[in-house]
Amino acid sequence: MDERPLILITNDDGVYAKGLAELIEVIRLFGNIVVVAPDSPRSGMGHAITVDHPLRVTRLQQEEGLLIYSCTGTPADCVKLACNQLLEKLPDFIISGINHGANTSVSILYSGTMGATLEGCIHGVPSIGFSLNDYSSEADFSKAKIVVARVFQAVAQHGLPEGVCLNVNVPQGDVKGINFCRQTRGKWVEEFEKRTDPHGREYYWLKGYFNNAEAEALDTDDFALLNGFASVVPVSTDLTAYSAFQQMQKWKF
Amino acid sequence: MDERPLILITNDDGVYAKGLAELIEVIRLFGNIVVVAPDSPRSGMGHAITVDHPLRVTRLQQEEGLLIYSCTGTPADCVKLACNQLLEKLPDFIISGINHGANTSVSILYSGTMGATLEGCIHGVPSIGFSLNDYSSEADFSKAKIVVARVFQAVAQHGLPEGVCLNVNVPQGDVKGINFCRQTRGKWVEEFEKRTDPHGREYYWLKGYFNNAEAEALDTDDFALLNGFASVVPVSTDLTAYSAFQQMQKWKF
Repeated sequence: MDERPLILITNDDGVYAKGLAELIEVIRLFGNIVVVAPDSPRSGMGHAITVDHPLRVTRLQQEEGLLIYSCTGTPADCVKLACNQLLEKLPDFIISGINHGANTSVSILYSGTMGATLEGCIHGVPSIGFSLNDYSSEADFSKAKIVVARVFQAVAQHGLPEGVCLNVNVPQGDVKGINFCRQTRGKWVEEFEKRTDPHGREYYWLKGYFNNAEAEALDTDDFALLNGFASVVPVSTDLTAYSAFQQMQKWKF
Repeated sequence: MDERPLILITNDDGVYAKGLAELIEVIRLFGNIVVVAPDSPRSGMGHAITVDHPLRVTRLQQEEGLLIYSCTGTPADCVKLACNQLLEKLPDFIISGINHGANTSVSILYSGTMGATLEGCIHGVPSIGFSLNDYSSEADFSKAKIVVARVFQAVAQHGLPEGVCLNVNVPQGDVKGINFCRQTRGKWVEEFEKRTDPHGREYYWLKGYFNNAEAEALDTDDFALLNGFASVVPVSTDLTAYSAFQQMQKWKF
C-alpha cells in the first residue's frame, strides 16, 4: 500500500514554466505528485474562476509518482477541477508556484499563484504558494528550492490552522533565513501607457511600480525580501475586518 | 464651483446590466457620476487584472453629472484605469454593483464586484460593493436601492477606516433591517459536469452549491441574508492571519 502523501501542484505561469518544473523536482522527494496547471500563463488572474466557458483537460505525462495535466482554466479552476473531478481523493497538500516574480503585499490579491493557494485552503487542504523575486523565465531557482523543502517539511510536521494558508516569497541570490511576516501596506501605482493602433484607435497598457507605504517596517514581507530573507505570511480566507466593528457600532442606517 | 462629490461606479455584470442602471439611478442623488464598467459580463473574475493585453475604452454617454465609459478589462482594471487615467482626480467614493446574485462568505474571493471594491480601497477611496440575492437579469432592485442609499449615506457621514471597504448583500423581497456581519465560513462544493463535444472530445462545466459550515451562526452574512436582513461585512485588504502567528512561533525552518 502506498503511504506516500498525495500532493497537488499548480501555478499561474503555465504548465511549461521553469518554476513549475523546479517545484516538481523538489516536491517529488516528499510524495506522489499530480500536476494540474494552466495550459498557458495566467498571471494577474487572482482568484478568478471560469463560469461562462467549459474547461478542457489534457494528460501530458504519466510516470511512477508523477502525473501531469494541463487545463484551459485559471489556477483556481485547476484546484477545483483536481479536487472535485480528476483526483480520487483530496490531496494531502496543495503547492502552487514557484512563481516567476514576487507576490508580496497587496500583490497577493492579483496573484493567480495565491488564488490557487487560497482555493486549496478553502478545500481544507494545507496549501502553500511559493514565489521567487525574479521575473525572468530563466530565473535561478536553486536557492528557492531549499526554501520550498524547508517550509514544506515544517507544514508537514505542524499542519496549518483551519482557514490559513501560506504565502512564501524568496529573494534572488543567497537566502539569509526564513521569517514569518505580515503583509506589507502598499499599492501599485499605475501609469497606463496610452498608444494609438495602426487604425487610429487608442488603447492602454497597464504598467506600474510598487509603492511601499511602510518601507521601514521590519515585520513585513517586503522588508524581509529586500533584505535577503524569505518571507512566510500566514494568509486567511476570511477577509472580515474584525477591528472595524467597534468603530462602526455607532452607525445608524 | 461644483461641490458635489465625484463618485466612480463599476460592476462585474457589464455596462448594460440592469443592476448597474439601478445603482446609477440611486447614487446620482448624491453626486456626479463617472461609470467605468466592463463591456460585457465578467462574473467570477475576482480581483483579476489584465497584464498580457492592452485595454480599450469607449465613451458611451455624457450628460450633466453622468459620464459612462465601457472598458474591455476586468472590474479591477476599470477602477485602475479610472483612478489613474480617465479621472482628473481620485473619486470621493467608489461603488460597485448592484450585482445580480449574492456575494456572501468565500464568494467574495471570486467576485468581480468585490475585486473592484477592494481595488478602490487599495487606492484609499471609501468603497462599497452591493449585491442582490437574485441572479435574474430582470431582478427587482427597488428594495436594494433603499439599502444602497442608507449604507452610502452612513459611509459619507462616518467614512471608513484605512484598508477597510464594505461588502453589502441584500435579500430578495422585503428587507427587515441592515446588520453588520462577519464573513460566513463555508465553501462551494463543485460537481463538474463532464460532457463530450460533437468531435468526441471531453469538456467540463463548473457547477456547484454553497455549503454553509456554520448555518446557525447569527452574526454571519449568510444568516442575515437568509433571514431577510441586508448584511454589511467590513472587509480588509490585509489578508494576514494574525491569529496564526502565536501557533507558528514554535516552528523551525
